Amino acid sequence: MSTEVPSRSTPDASDLSPSSAAETKKYKVIGTRPIRHDGADKVTGKARYTSDVLLPNMAYGALVRSPYAHARIVSIDTSEAEAMPGVLATMTSADLPDPWDKVENLGEGCINYAHLSGNVLARGKALYKGHAVAAVCATNAHLAEEAAAKIKVEYEPLPAVTWVLDAMKEDAPLLHDNLVTQALGEESARPSNIGAHIHFEQGDLEAGWAAADVIVEREFKTSSIHQGYIEPHVSIAMWNEDGRLKIWTGTQGSFVVRQQMAELLKIPVSQVLVIPCEIGGGFGGKIAVYEQPVAAVLSRKCGRPVKIAMRRDEVFEATGPTPGSYMRVKLGATKDGKLTAGEAWLAYDAGAFPGGVIGPGCMCVFSCYDIPNAVVDGYDVVANKPKVQAYRAPGSTHAAFACESVIDELALELKIDPLDFRLKNAVQEGSRRVDGPVYPRIGLIETLEAVRDSQHWNSPLEGPNRGRGIACGFWFNAGLQSSVTAAVNPDGTVSMSEGSTDIGGTRASIAMQLAETLGIAATDVQPQVVDTDSIGYTDVTGGSRVTFATGLAAYQAGLDIQKQMVRRAAELWECDVDQVTVEDGVYRYGDAALSFKELAVKLNNAGDPIVGRASVSPQVSTNAFGAHIVDVEVDPETGKVTILRYTAVQDAGKAIHPSYVEGQMQGGAAQGIGWALNEEYFYDDEGVMRNASFLDYRIPTAFDLPMIETIIVEVPNPDHPYGVRGVGEVPIVPPPAALAIAIHRATGCRMHELPMSPPHVWRAMQDR
Amino acid sequence: MSTEVPSRSTPDASDLSPSSAAETKKYKVIGTRPIRHDGADKVTGKARYTSDVLLPNMAYGALVRSPYAHARIVSIDTSEAEAMPGVLATMTSADLPDPWDKVENLGEGCINYAHLSGNVLARGKALYKGHAVAAVCATNAHLAEEAAAKIKVEYEPLPAVTWVLDAMKEDAPLLHDNLVTQALGEESARPSNIGAHIHFEQGDLEAGWAAADVIVEREFKTSSIHQGYIEPHVSIAMWNEDGRLKIWTGTQGSFVVRQQMAELLKIPVSQVLVIPCEIGGGFGGKIAVYEQPVAAVLSRKCGRPVKIAMRRDEVFEATGPTPGSYMRVKLGATKDGKLTAGEAWLAYDAGAFPGGVIGPGCMCVFSCYDIPNAVVDGYDVVANKPKVQAYRAPGSTHAAFACESVIDELALELKIDPLDFRLKNAVQEGSRRVDGPVYPRIGLIETLEAVRDSQHWNSPLEGPNRGRGIACGFWFNAGLQSSVTAAVNPDGTVSMSEGSTDIGGTRASIAMQLAETLGIAATDVQPQVVDTDSIGYTDVTGGSRVTFATGLAAYQAGLDIQKQMVRRAAELWECDVDQVTVEDGVYRYGDAALSFKELAVKLNNAGDPIVGRASVSPQVSTNAFGAHIVDVEVDPETGKVTILRYTAVQDAGKAIHPSYVEGQMQGGAAQGIGWALNEEYFYDDEGVMRNASFLDYRIPTAFDLPMIETIIVEVPNPDHPYGVRGVGEVPIVPPPAALAIAIHRATGCRMHELPMSPPHVWRAMQDR
Repeated sequence: MSTEVPSRSTPDASDLSPSSAAETKKYKVIGTRPIRHDGADKVTGKARYTSDVLLPNMAYGALVRSPYAHARIVSIDTSEAEAMPGVLATMTSADLPDPWDKVENLGEGCINYAHLSGNVLARGKALYKGHAVAAVCATNAHLAEEAAAKIKVEYEPLPAVTWVLDAMKEDAPLLHDNLVTQALGEESARPSNIGAHIHFEQGDLEAGWAAADVIVEREFKTSSIHQGYIEPHVSIAMWNEDGRLKIWTGTQGSFVVRQQMAELLKIPVSQVLVIPCEIGGGFGGKIAVYEQPVAAVLSRKCGRPVKIAMRRDEVFEATGPTPGSYMRVKLGATKDGKLTAGEAWLAYDAGAFPGGVIGPGCMCVFSCYDIPNAVVDGYDVVANKPKVQAYRAPGSTHAAFACESVIDELALELKIDPLDFRLKNAVQEGSRRVDGPVYPRIGLIETLEAVRDSQHWNSPLEGPNRGRGIACGFWFNAGLQSSVTAAVNPDGTVSMSEGSTDIGGTRASIAMQLAETLGIAATDVQPQVVDTDSIGYTDVTGGSRVTFATGLAAYQAGLDIQKQMVRRAAELWECDVDQVTVEDGVYRYGDAALSFKELAVKLNNAGDPIVGRASVSPQVSTNAFGAHIVDVEVDPETGKVTILRYTAVQDAGKAIHPSYVEGQMQGGAAQGIGWALNEEYFYDDEGVMRNASFLDYRIPTAFDLPMIETIIVEVPNPDHPYGVRGVGEVPIVPPPAALAIAIHRATGCRMHELPMSPPHVWRAMQDR
Repeated sequence: MSTEVPSRSTPDASDLSPSSAAETKKYKVIGTRPIRHDGADKVTGKARYTSDVLLPNMAYGALVRSPYAHARIVSIDTSEAEAMPGVLATMTSADLPDPWDKVENLGEGCINYAHLSGNVLARGKALYKGHAVAAVCATNAHLAEEAAAKIKVEYEPLPAVTWVLDAMKEDAPLLHDNLVTQALGEESARPSNIGAHIHFEQGDLEAGWAAADVIVEREFKTSSIHQGYIEPHVSIAMWNEDGRLKIWTGTQGSFVVRQQMAELLKIPVSQVLVIPCEIGGGFGGKIAVYEQPVAAVLSRKCGRPVKIAMRRDEVFEATGPTPGSYMRVKLGATKDGKLTAGEAWLAYDAGAFPGGVIGPGCMCVFSCYDIPNAVVDGYDVVANKPKVQAYRAPGSTHAAFACESVIDELALELKIDPLDFRLKNAVQEGSRRVDGPVYPRIGLIETLEAVRDSQHWNSPLEGPNRGRGIACGFWFNAGLQSSVTAAVNPDGTVSMSEGSTDIGGTRASIAMQLAETLGIAATDVQPQVVDTDSIGYTDVTGGSRVTFATGLAAYQAGLDIQKQMVRRAAELWECDVDQVTVEDGVYRYGDAALSFKELAVKLNNAGDPIVGRASVSPQVSTNAFGAHIVDVEVDPETGKVTILRYTAVQDAGKAIHPSYVEGQMQGGAAQGIGWALNEEYFYDDEGVMRNASFLDYRIPTAFDLPMIETIIVEVPNPDHPYGVRGVGEVPIVPPPAALAIAIHRATGCRMHELPMSPPHVWRAMQDR
């Protein structure tokens, strides 16, 4: 179901953003549901994942990992492994260049290169159970595993800390000797586990509290959660003797991997070629490199291509979970339901190295509401856990769990319908977010109105132990850099290359925007994701940016082609360029009219082949909102939560391929439900994860979920020619809050800790 | 050794061809000898040839080939093969679409698609020994070979003909029922083996003979010769259920393969992706498809990728030799050494299907000389031999062997030094070739002058049984279509993509032209050959066109980048675009100056990535000439010819990477020497090749050749910004003629037949 919403005002529509046109225009390709271009490759097993890449003479690598959550590395003896027949090379962090001679920040949410290097292979200390300490490669994978077991590492175990509040204590075991809080207005010469302190404020908080009639303050806890992608990390490196390094890997950002490899190995980016293979899920967790630099160094040492594939336990223990967190949120409102003040205190662990996702957490916590007086404090805290990585709207899900739970409680206290309360306080164009930005045209109100008008919301929910919850969610759309090139084929089809790896439908959503621009069918564009040598710089597939920003590049590449086609049509018709008109892909001069395909076929062999290209770097931030409705039944005997019905509502700006948008909404909701109800890193007292397998770390299966219904709201983004907003991340944000509220309605219990698994819910019911 | 020659006149220099600048400009990159970009990959064995491509679940195909040179196919029974465990699919020509429903000519030198299809798998009749008749694929290559042997083909043998003059006889066995000569002024309703008759004339031939004081007429014969590439034909096809077909292959033209596959399989070109792997030699013989359509159909049938690799005997017996030929050449001249008339009658076999290389043979036979009155007749003749393909300057070597031999004899009759005689009659700017074109600025005279001035020419040759010969050679440079894209990296290097497969140095020669244009080092451009989805249409690597035409695209892509850099520099310096100047890659405004790299690094992350692109289709024909000097000693006991010294002189226009130009000259000369002295298809009376292995078909080895000296002459091509002329084909043209003349000087015998192998030379000496 798709609801198109008329725009309000678009005061600053530039030539790149004909949003008023976009709102009324009927598209031919956009909004349709063509068969995906990569569908057959995926369903027939012919899509090429890194594991499918076989190179002649390939060696296989294996990693030696710390059995301790925190330990000094006293010595590493590789001699026995090296003596084994078939073993080709070993390495430790000593084989990586000194990472500390140039430390630069990758930007928000990313660690610096010294930390990245130290995460790839431990330097001096192992900082978490599973931290890679050494590596070996051999002529086959079994031999490599065997050789890894022969590498002798002597450790001096140290006390470990895994819970964020424990790690913040003055007497906590310190992970880094040199970690000194760099934060707004706060400096300390004393090392701690605090990597950063973030502070946002607006208005006058004290005045806000004074104006409030009701104030609610609650605290919340969440566990580490893994992205749970099905494909483990796999890479192949081939570092040739001319210094040229080729990397095959499944990644969210081939250019990001190129940059990281160049920085970690201290070689020019132009010496690195990254060939992105298909990716079996990423969700934020396949941006940072892990095994790639190890495979590279082993390849240089042994002169062969080296493949490293992680086991599932390695994925859990050593790659990117989202943080565990402690949060306090306090909100005040007047009797008539206007929020007057908000305060949030958030501590997210960052894993073993600073630079987690506290920044966006702080930006998102109050992002759905107009709160005139607000203060947010956030702490980035290292702990003896794998380095935190992004996971769909990183940091926002935690924050929404806290904020939305308090919003709900406040509404109940005020005896205002929680949906009305949200509508009354929802951000809209002109609202200022606590971290500064003022929203352009956004669609939260339309999304909440779609909830209000939905069949689900208006259907009764009857029966004992049942309850319904709703919650909102927010995420940004990053801009960054994107490139597209496209060549017109002799048969009038178009081959399109993009630098954005396809983690969830990029090929279709970008190809369709090019097709729309050119006035041809979606299937007449053949999209492909190419390697880093074959396209202009393109940033990560993440931040819900690709359909927005790479789509903009496709649109501009289409205009570039169209301009050339007009010039060539004018030559053909022997008229002036400005006498040729184009509408919906039909080129006209006087009575003559040719479709794009007809013209392309005519132009073939009559001159230069036509190639379009565009590189963009939109300097705008786009914003996307969703709201979810969930009905649950809680088993009073076991605390097990069964989801009876689930509806995800979201402003997609303009849904390019609605099935993909629905798929993102369903997939994000499914992951949010897993996070809410079951998933957690279960640590023992030694900081060892006790459930590092898919048998024990339980992500939802089809048996656990109902069909997730979707309602797409379309409030066109004024900063995109087709009104696109990114959709991939928002849908993971509302589920924990919506489920907590639904459980409250079903049981009367407020759940302040994730996961809301049977033992926790049962305990809460008992305590009540 | 490199000789730069000043230009004469360049009356029509357009903006794309600043040849007068090119002639005086000192280049920074062009003319230097950087390490080749693909060098390490090649010498370390990491370059990826098709044989190196391993795909999961890959099947292996094998072909069943006709044991007869000419036979009706009565029946094919694949049942026994299909019943073998591990056999996945079989096919015959019945599995290819009917090729005759749309017959279109590929253009000069290429067969039509019906013939191409019939060559891939025989339809009704096998037309040569080794003609593929059926195919099978299985889970491994050995099993596929075994299964191929189980396919029962019943043949009705027919009389065969392999010598071109025999095939032209009225009572010759006919290969095709429907072959009716389509030619200038000659039509016949009666089928024959004559595929085409070509006729060129200029002036008044009778008046020319009347004006001549001396006339010499001789006849010549040559055998079929193979290109002798080291890598056999290998391809992998994966045809997925959505209709999308991927082909991995080593080819001279990935887009040509795409087109051929689309035509033969009757699918749109946009459904075909061709991934060009490294190529282990082509020389004209890797343009037409052979095993690719077979692998494709087998893949569609069995649902797996299918690899087919030919054995060496299959390469000899079933892939592209250059034709055997019969030629008569008659020339007349005045006493003072001016040519007055020429007549050539050439018959080249085309192999089993019409469309051989007679066309260029006719164009080339008199291409080095100003002959005011001339007639050329040429015949394209089918015979029971593998379909002829291009081989370096296709058709020109035969013709030069004939013409240069008569030129030499005529000069001796006239008692004029043969070099002076050539200089006196050499074509120059304004000369008209017999097929019509008038030469623009060319360099034959400068080349002959370089011969005259060379140390080799001026050194004495003493001793018995020794002789020195020289001969000239000519070849065109095709224009056609080429595309280049290039992306500026954050470190100021440039990644360049081209559609031209690299058969002999494309990466270096194109990258260097881009580097020169941008004012950066050759090693700062990272070139790569990409697949057909990733670049604009690019024609075959052949016709000596790539360094010329794809180089032009690189130049224009460089200008495109430069224009964007200027605009961005103006933004940086806050000045007007026209206030920014660029010279030698340095961008200036007032006192500010930044190199390309400095500017690129500054611009990184400050806006859109910079990507340049150009597609070109030069409408000019460029012309290249060479002349070779050879000293031989002939063993009077055996007739064995030993080469004492060899010098190749050639006008390269402007040598981009002189080592590559020298390599082309040396490689071409080596192949021409093999052709002259040893190589031949040795057919028995049944039309069976008796020497289909590298043991029996003897190409020259390092032991057979002296170091081939080179002299590069540089008469800039006015139609290229850097003056480039293609160099790859000319050097195979002079060797047979030069050697025949040298053997004459050593022995007194005129050799009129190739190869001039020991038995033939010994027989000639005996007959004398």
